[in-house]
Amino acid sequence: MVGYGFMGAAHSQGWRVAPRFFDLPAQVGMNVLVGRHSDGVEAAAAKWGWSETATDWRTLLDRDDIDIIDIVTPGDSHAEIAIAALEAGKHVMCEKPMSNTVAEAIAMTAAAEAAAAKGVLAMVGYTYRRVPAATFARDLVAAGKIGEVQQVRASYLQDWLVDPTVPLSWRLQKELAGSGALGDIGAHAIDLAQFVTGLTLTAVSGTLETIIAERPLEGERSGITGTAGEGSGMVTVDDMALFTGRFSNGALGSFEATRFSTGRKNALRLEVSGSLGAISFDLEDLNSLGFYDATAPATEQGFTKIYVTEPQHPYISAWWPAGHMLGYEHGFSHQAKDFVEAIVAAQQPTPSFADALQVQRVLAAVETSAGNGSAWTSTSN
Amino acid sequence: MVGYGFMGAAHSQGWRVAPRFFDLPAQVGMNVLVGRHSDGVEAAAAKWGWSETATDWRTLLDRDDIDIIDIVTPGDSHAEIAIAALEAGKHVMCEKPMSNTVAEAIAMTAAAEAAAAKGVLAMVGYTYRRVPAATFARDLVAAGKIGEVQQVRASYLQDWLVDPTVPLSWRLQKELAGSGALGDIGAHAIDLAQFVTGLTLTAVSGTLETIIAERPLEGERSGITGTAGEGSGMVTVDDMALFTGRFSNGALGSFEATRFSTGRKNALRLEVSGSLGAISFDLEDLNSLGFYDATAPATEQGFTKIYVTEPQHPYISAWWPAGHMLGYEHGFSHQAKDFVEAIVAAQQPTPSFADALQVQRVLAAVETSAGNGSAWTSTSN
Amino acid sequence: MVGYGFMGAAHSQGWRVAPRFFDLPAQVGMNVLVGRHSDGVEAAAAKWGWSETATDWRTLLDRDDIDIIDIVTPGDSHAEIAIAALEAGKHVMCEKPMSNTVAEAIAMTAAAEAAAAKGVLAMVGYTYRRVPAATFARDLVAAGKIGEVQQVRASYLQDWLVDPTVPLSWRLQKELAGSGALGDIGAHAIDLAQFVTGLTLTAVSGTLETIIAERPLEGERSGITGTAGEGSGMVTVDDMALFTGRFSNGALGSFEATRFSTGRKNALRLEVSGSLGAISFDLEDLNSLGFYDATAPATEQGFTKIYVTEPQHPYISAWWPAGHMLGYEHGFSHQAKDFVEAIVAAQQPTPSFADALQVQRVLAAVETSAGNGSAWTSTSN
Amino acid sequence: MVGYGFMGAAHSQGWRVAPRFFDLPAQVGMNVLVGRHSDGVEAAAAKWGWSETATDWRTLLDRDDIDIIDIVTPGDSHAEIAIAALEAGKHVMCEKPMSNTVAEAIAMTAAAEAAAAKGVLAMVGYTYRRVPAATFARDLVAAGKIGEVQQVRASYLQDWLVDPTVPLSWRLQKELAGSGALGDIGAHAIDLAQFVTGLTLTAVSGTLETIIAERPLEGERSGITGTAGEGSGMVTVDDMALFTGRFSNGALGSFEATRFSTGRKNALRLEVSGSLGAISFDLEDLNSLGFYDATAPATEQGFTKIYVTEPQHPYISAWWPAGHMLGYEHGFSHQAKDFVEAIVAAQQPTPSFADALQVQRVLAAVETSAGNGSAWTSTSN
Repeated sequence: MVGYGFMGAAHSQGWRVAPRFFDLPAQVGMNVLVGRHSDGVEAAAAKWGWSETATDWRTLLDRDDIDIIDIVTPGDSHAEIAIAALEAGKHVMCEKPMSNTVAEAIAMTAAAEAAAAKGVLAMVGYTYRRVPAATFARDLVAAGKIGEVQQVRASYLQDWLVDPTVPLSWRLQKELAGSGALGDIGAHAIDLAQFVTGLTLTAVSGTLETIIAERPLEGERSGITGTAGEGSGMVTVDDMALFTGRFSNGALGSFEATRFSTGRKNALRLEVSGSLGAISFDLEDLNSLGFYDATAPATEQGFTKIYVTEPQHPYISAWWPAGHMLGYEHGFSHQAKDFVEAIVAAQQPTPSFADALQVQRVLAAVETSAGNGSAWTSTSN
Repeated sequence: MVGYGFMGAAHSQGWRVAPRFFDLPAQVGMNVLVGRHSDGVEAAAAKWGWSETATDWRTLLDRDDIDIIDIVTPGDSHAEIAIAALEAGKHVMCEKPMSNTVAEAIAMTAAAEAAAAKGVLAMVGYTYRRVPAATFARDLVAAGKIGEVQQVRASYLQDWLVDPTVPLSWRLQKELAGSGALGDIGAHAIDLAQFVTGLTLTAVSGTLETIIAERPLEGERSGITGTAGEGSGMVTVDDMALFTGRFSNGALGSFEATRFSTGRKNALRLEVSGSLGAISFDLEDLNSLGFYDATAPATEQGFTKIYVTEPQHPYISAWWPAGHMLGYEHGFSHQAKDFVEAIVAAQQPTPSFADALQVQRVLAAVETSAGNGSAWTSTSN
Repeated sequence: MVGYGFMGAAHSQGWRVAPRFFDLPAQVGMNVLVGRHSDGVEAAAAKWGWSETATDWRTLLDRDDIDIIDIVTPGDSHAEIAIAALEAGKHVMCEKPMSNTVAEAIAMTAAAEAAAAKGVLAMVGYTYRRVPAATFARDLVAAGKIGEVQQVRASYLQDWLVDPTVPLSWRLQKELAGSGALGDIGAHAIDLAQFVTGLTLTAVSGTLETIIAERPLEGERSGITGTAGEGSGMVTVDDMALFTGRFSNGALGSFEATRFSTGRKNALRLEVSGSLGAISFDLEDLNSLGFYDATAPATEQGFTKIYVTEPQHPYISAWWPAGHMLGYEHGFSHQAKDFVEAIVAAQQPTPSFADALQVQRVLAAVETSAGNGSAWTSTSN
Repeated sequence: MVGYGFMGAAHSQGWRVAPRFFDLPAQVGMNVLVGRHSDGVEAAAAKWGWSETATDWRTLLDRDDIDIIDIVTPGDSHAEIAIAALEAGKHVMCEKPMSNTVAEAIAMTAAAEAAAAKGVLAMVGYTYRRVPAATFARDLVAAGKIGEVQQVRASYLQDWLVDPTVPLSWRLQKELAGSGALGDIGAHAIDLAQFVTGLTLTAVSGTLETIIAERPLEGERSGITGTAGEGSGMVTVDDMALFTGRFSNGALGSFEATRFSTGRKNALRLEVSGSLGAISFDLEDLNSLGFYDATAPATEQGFTKIYVTEPQHPYISAWWPAGHMLGYEHGFSHQAKDFVEAIVAAQQPTPSFADALQVQRVLAAVETSAGNGSAWTSTSN
């Protein structure tokens, strides 16, 4: 695994736990943790249980005992590592966002397709698809339970930038992060909406907004933010993205990604309204799904709060009895399991690089639209 | 109408509004408001729109233009007025609790039965039955939607006595109020549970508790409490009643009535668990009903939040379009409508005096049990 | 009162009930109900308790015993009646939307300003401002409890058009209704957002969508829809409006008005995020308000569900004890009360015609933007 | 670790994950998994990552490389193993319920006290104390945030026995399970209530009920239930326990444990009402805590939904950023961490065997009371 930030901890937990609950078709070890700073990577490897460390990911490429490379570095390095790894015949799990630019994503997708022809597989880590309630929402929609999708509302609400003393971390600088709320969390909203509906966004009209333009420079890093140091600098990414999107079946969706929704900590929400029903999901209540069945008797209609913890629900039979809740990181175990199963079965795991490229195109189209007075912009350019 | 306290306002609103939304089979006027203090009753009559006032309810008995007497005085006067009114051939609506003693309730029930033989009808004002969601809950249970009732949880939670400076009003004195939380709000929980399940409580084991034993004497009255005056006195009723009850089909229910549930203002809650499903109601969210259908596919089970505001729901077609919420006092209009319809149809309205007597027997049995170390006590004595 | 549709029933209830709970500074009678069809208006007057009827509203203008004219007709007649009434010296309550065009609204506003100079007052019925929780939200924002407003989310979600057999009523025809979801319910979302924040929208970028383009012609009218007749016709208004707005302080807001949000019956929702906190409101849970205080200790922060039913809350002391819920129509009593008080105090009631004109300008700007590829459009033209 | 059922999986996850997130003061290995059937225990060890297996727990007693014995067998074997282990100088973690009888618990407590004198420590696994929201609830109460505890409501609601075809597993047989809902889940409600309030129950009045008396014999085991085999037998434990308890400060609490609460899967609920506020917890929504502050301004009071996911909350800083939810099994990591820390610090971990004995006394008192017509029964005998 390359990278050892917050996502490194989450992916490690996925690799560690998946084989203890699921019957994986292959044994997966936690072999080498890679990071640029040897002290840091050694400490992380010891903590998380990786057998070895390395400071250069290239050293993994020639090793026969390494089959999978899991990339959890910042987005600007994804393309280089992923392409090299695929060319070296390693299966690649790449954390989202896939890349900082569409051009990189296109190159990565081409590399993935070339690799696939040789049985080498690539996948992007839109983990929230694998929250059981989200997977089950997809199942309900795919089974026709809500009929034709007629409108969609997707949002990802956080509030950690409301405090003006939060410093100017790399996440707030365009050259490092690519974009702000849009790419960081809006990407999840886009992927989830496309995943659950089975549709793609074909065009968008959007607005990006930086609410607090100047912030103290960063002192020490800590978690997703850090402490304020001396001096200040300009925020060069969006704090908030609002856009309307047109889906491939003609339905409209509203999208919101914001780090200024005071009181909302990690609220990835999706509501899909169809001709026969609706589903409603909120990551802050991740073990349940709202389902409205418009074909029920008129007096009995309402949103049903389904706890997605029954053995018949996706992924659940491996875990606990009904009503025993899962948490944030379970999705990483599901992702690890599905990836390993796909590799052994020699089947393309999802989301593929091509799927993730589509998300990158939507992100780029929103930026273009926002820079162009919110004019409607196709996602196919 | 006899009495002009808080319940007087609510009943007046019922009589005023019912004919404006429902097609009543008879015209009902708001004729005479009766109260002991002429100043007070005249002010109330002017405010609420009653045509005349009187200071002695006996003057109504001989008037041919009076068909209905609505009794909203404190419980200790109900028996005398109700019996006299029924004997005078007046239909009687009597506010709950029906009486302060079982003996009075027995006498009232006998009077009601004698009157019924002559076509004169009597009813008790357990209004919460007529919240549409509660009525609909009864309908679902009666239709077998939750199967056999297997357990019941009923509670009525308030918190207005948590503040130790709340004075010693009449509601806290046994000789005036009969009992405390038990009779005032516990009676509602009992009635609602019996109404929705269609069962009666046959035996109980309970405990009564006075949490704050001494309070300041009352200064001025205001709303349901008042302001503290000088001096203090002993609370002689229960602040809280907890009891377990056995229903006529053998199912157990837990009951709680309390004025010390900090933060709960008016939470009359009922959950009925059956062999095929469950219903869940909370008066603090009175426009909706939770319904669990255990016959649905395993992956789709959950409590459905039904907004009981569709035209097909009880009472709703007279009001607003779907999703337009009703409030506390709508039950009083429903009660007025149903009473008038029953009178015109010459059919016994519910709850009858006999039904309410059953509630009084339960209250008395709880007191007996509490005074007897929580020993199980039959409600039929 | 001119008009006797659904809004006629609601306004009648307001006039009927307000004097019974509030101490109005003047006595208000329900004198003349006006409608074009004498049979219909007579039946409605009898039902609702109006003393007289008329078929021509002009006959009211010369009557000295008429001080207030309440207009609840469809929007296309508001301008003519309101202007004539104001010129005749009658105080005017006008139901929203104020008019079908900005031009009419400008003329009405001019008439209102001329009338105001003579002490004749006009007001528009954006009733939802007077839901106590909404009024209290405004109070919290105005008191600085959430700091500077930084983003807004407003939506009004209904689902009555999801059923494709719902017929082509007047509400779905542009020449009669002006617009669809946008003007009918989006107007409420706009007014509420502006009211609670104390800000105005200065520019918008939006999209309008008709999801089901062809519907059966209407057979019989019933409630807000009706039954399907023979033949079919084209829907000429929007089923759904999505737009982004810029507020006068620079903050962005997202807006959604839809009749296709399956399972949402009457969900007017508003969330205002500020630098020190947030408020959250949902008309489907109208007795409560969510309030997030970002100045509380970090471990104790969260949305507080405030039941806006305490005597210290707006309008509540006239009603019931804490925890006794109000319903949809209570806002009409509050509106009647505030209007009468403003007239007696010779003070401008709110929202004034000028306030409502601002809403009309926003609606028009959304339509312009939608017709212009979602280009940002100022609301001041 | 001795035992490898459902609790074995949960405890294994605790031992596996705790060192990866917390900085434990000692390294803890997963050495020997013990079970009677060598096939089963070997499969479980391989799956869960234990290094060795054994079929007789006594073989652990003499091994110097074993410091801790974790007992997750059924309750009837706890006493023997725990006492032997403590006498052999092994620290003991014992899953709840501590034992099937009070006599065993007394013996175990004596052994634990003797061992403690030699620095050997024992603890019982009431894991739900270590759900961060529950721990934080205790902190709020201990800090006086809700004032004096005045009433308590505790319940543990499940519904897996509503289905009459669920077979007669060992959990439904008194000789194996000790009791039914009372000991299995009621014990959690008792422990949690005592833990959060800092009080103990001194007397109880209760009722036990078997709702479905006869069930099919068990075919194959699966999860907490199994499949029905041929023939049927009598259920000899309670399906439901209802009791009222008196706390050491005089406050009353109501308790309910049931496997017949249709639609409730794993709802351990606790509400503690105090003179200055209240807390409300539900295990089905385990990342949040309701907190009512009765000292806030009257207009701003309400239950605050605190997401207990901030770094300042108990245990959270080791996990994810704010708003990233934890699940059921995180409590087992917290328990492992706290136990290891206590051992290294040579301090008594909680709950101690003495604490758990107190819970056993309450359980026994409920049984005694239930067998004695619900007579009030002291917990000190």
